[in-house]
Amino acid sequence: MTTAISDALALDSAAQDLLFREARTANAFTDEPVGDEQIQAIYDLVKHAPTAMNQQPLRVVLVRSPEGRERLLQHMNEGNRAKTAAAPLVAILAADNEFHEELPTQFPAVPQAKDFFAERPRREASARFNGALQAAYFILGIRAAGLAAGPMGGYDAAGVDKEFFGDGEHSVLMVVNIGKPGENASYPRGPRLSYDEVVTTV
Amino acid sequence: MTTAISDALALDSAAQDLLFREARTANAFTDEPVGDEQIQAIYDLVKHAPTAMNQQPLRVVLVRSPEGRERLLQHMNEGNRAKTAAAPLVAILAADNEFHEELPTQFPAVPQAKDFFAERPRREASARFNGALQAAYFILGIRAAGLAAGPMGGYDAAGVDKEFFGDGEHSVLMVVNIGKPGENASYPRGPRLSYDEVVTTV
Repeated sequence: MTTAISDALALDSAAQDLLFREARTANAFTDEPVGDEQIQAIYDLVKHAPTAMNQQPLRVVLVRSPEGRERLLQHMNEGNRAKTAAAPLVAILAADNEFHEELPTQFPAVPQAKDFFAERPRREASARFNGALQAAYFILGIRAAGLAAGPMGGYDAAGVDKEFFGDGEHSVLMVVNIGKPGENASYPRGPRLSYDEVVTTV
Repeated sequence: MTTAISDALALDSAAQDLLFREARTANAFTDEPVGDEQIQAIYDLVKHAPTAMNQQPLRVVLVRSPEGRERLLQHMNEGNRAKTAAAPLVAILAADNEFHEELPTQFPAVPQAKDFFAERPRREASARFNGALQAAYFILGIRAAGLAAGPMGGYDAAGVDKEFFGDGEHSVLMVVNIGKPGENASYPRGPRLSYDEVVTTV
């Protein structure tokens, strides 16, 4: 499914569909399992996408055990509980607020980069922002693997942080159900703002 | 360029390279102009990617006039000024902190969604987070158009906000140079955390 305007893109039309046009947020999944090798392939792809100063705050907790699922479900909003219980795989995406400790090895070009984040509020804000960029790349990576993502923001964030990290140094960004979309997996697609509502020129 | 692990992906290998593996942040560009029709095609693609409650806080200011470029340059950090002056096109990506006004039309499934963001701090945080997701999609959209992105965080944010919006309702997220990469456009790619440093299983 292409439109005339999509011809201006270098990305082939099948890839456009897979990542953006036909991909949809899923709320129901088939029973087909999602293997670790798929998540490895996703990470191996999306890890290349850019962040500020090569910051890499994103952390992923794969919830595979029944016990882990129960621990997560109690913190999910009620409306998200059934689908999170049923999804083949659930991933907790979080930001590591101590990411700056890695900058000496991850961004050696600027030796003082770590010091720039000496104050906790600044590095927490940066972890959240760059973690969000990485979460967006990760969602598209799930689609690149031929899977559907069901990202959710409805949970008790403090509860999830304490339950799965407990060190006060991680902040959950979103919880994502992952799998092959099942029957009636998606709501009708919502509207989008027009180009002229979003883009202006000076 | 594929690795064995990339075979686990549904996305074709050329698309993997275009968006992630071979694409690089660019600091130098050719003189080839970037037309409005390319930005339209990018938006028409990436607008489909998901956010929470179909929030669409992202706003894009294309800086095309010499006057607009001068107005921006004065707020850029010195290290970003020359490349921002020379790029074929510069886009200011910002979050509209009043995005909740659009929720009655953009997320009609939940009529009370707008009220959820009645308090400014909550909607500012949500605009920044979902705007970051949209900015990440936009960066990949630039690459999907066969162009290189040079996203920057080094500027006086309050200065940019006042200069280009002035209504107190928008917050700049990043400034992005856009064009075909020129000679020596990129630094050597930095390291990435390993899968085991990022992903755990419970």
